[in-house]
Amino acid sequence: MDNSRDPLKQLIEQLKKLPGIGSKSAQRIVFYLVRQSLENCTELADAILELKQELILCSTCNDISHIDPCQICRDSGRDLSKICVVEEPFNVHSIEKGGHYRGTYHVLHGAISPLNGIGPDRLKIENLFDRLRDDSIQEVILATNPTSDGEATAHYLSRLIKPMDIIVSRIAFGIPVGSDIEYADEVTLSRAISGRQKL
Amino acid sequence: MDNSRDPLKQLIEQLKKLPGIGSKSAQRIVFYLVRQSLENCTELADAILELKQELILCSTCNDISHIDPCQICRDSGRDLSKICVVEEPFNVHSIEKGGHYRGTYHVLHGAISPLNGIGPDRLKIENLFDRLRDDSIQEVILATNPTSDGEATAHYLSRLIKPMDIIVSRIAFGIPVGSDIEYADEVTLSRAISGRQKL
Repeated sequence: MDNSRDPLKQLIEQLKKLPGIGSKSAQRIVFYLVRQSLENCTELADAILELKQELILCSTCNDISHIDPCQICRDSGRDLSKICVVEEPFNVHSIEKGGHYRGTYHVLHGAISPLNGIGPDRLKIENLFDRLRDDSIQEVILATNPTSDGEATAHYLSRLIKPMDIIVSRIAFGIPVGSDIEYADEVTLSRAISGRQKL
Repeated sequence: MDNSRDPLKQLIEQLKKLPGIGSKSAQRIVFYLVRQSLENCTELADAILELKQELILCSTCNDISHIDPCQICRDSGRDLSKICVVEEPFNVHSIEKGGHYRGTYHVLHGAISPLNGIGPDRLKIENLFDRLRDDSIQEVILATNPTSDGEATAHYLSRLIKPMDIIVSRIAFGIPVGSDIEYADEVTLSRAISGRQKL
């Protein structure tokens, strides 16, 4: 049988490439779409195409955006004296969902990884220092991942920024809220204890 | 902030409508797509559009297909004397993945559901009987779900088909392969015992 032109199988194959989607989920989605109106399916397809066609990098913070500067960088309600440095654009999204942080961001698009041959020159660090030369910046919050690469990046940036008379801080690592101390691993527990805060 | 035109948020909203995809998975998929080439994204969008534009119902078995008759109905290697009756097109897909069944199918596009006001006239039963009038049909396998609606449908069809001198069978219900008797519910266990087979 020639399956190469079967739209069902083709879409299942396409969906299986997405993260977190296996054969069963792909099949469920395809049969869900089959029952939707053509209009609904077109909306989804258009949203996928627009994503690639309209997104650019913000020239200030390197976050992906459809406008330059991005909505956060152009928001006058933001505290421009704080920059939160993250590895990837989706980290901005995650922190924004928390809704507490009101400063700005800087996306590095990666982390220093000597094992993979990724040095500081491969990251978007240059325009971070362009921003830091502005006197209004008071604090840089390093929110890279608690992995060896993320830690190395935080260490590298901290060493360069501290002499500039800017406060450098690292986000806290410890027990996740809603979780149980019993299930925390030793490294997390050690960091939770060493990072304890006075009440 | 005006988010209505943000392609990121728009696609996340679209993806969240799909079955089994929540906020976190939608976000992961969107940021995965952002990093893909425009070509890969276009392939996915096209596959979604083609699904709706090219799919039709097979005039013989009512399965969704891009050709009529569908690939199974036109396959000369199939055993045309057996018809497996299922509720939905994805049931065909599931049974086909098993790879053992070599007969044909008939998709009802639903099940009789008196509580929801769905009678036999709302299902695609008429062309099933058109097919049964052909003398070559020897067996009808009822593979509707083991729910009250599926059982009602199986019972209804069985009562009508039996007088036509055609074998009517129901798929077996019991303990799933690879599972543990300890975790089976009482109803499944009862059906597994009443449906026991001689060795």
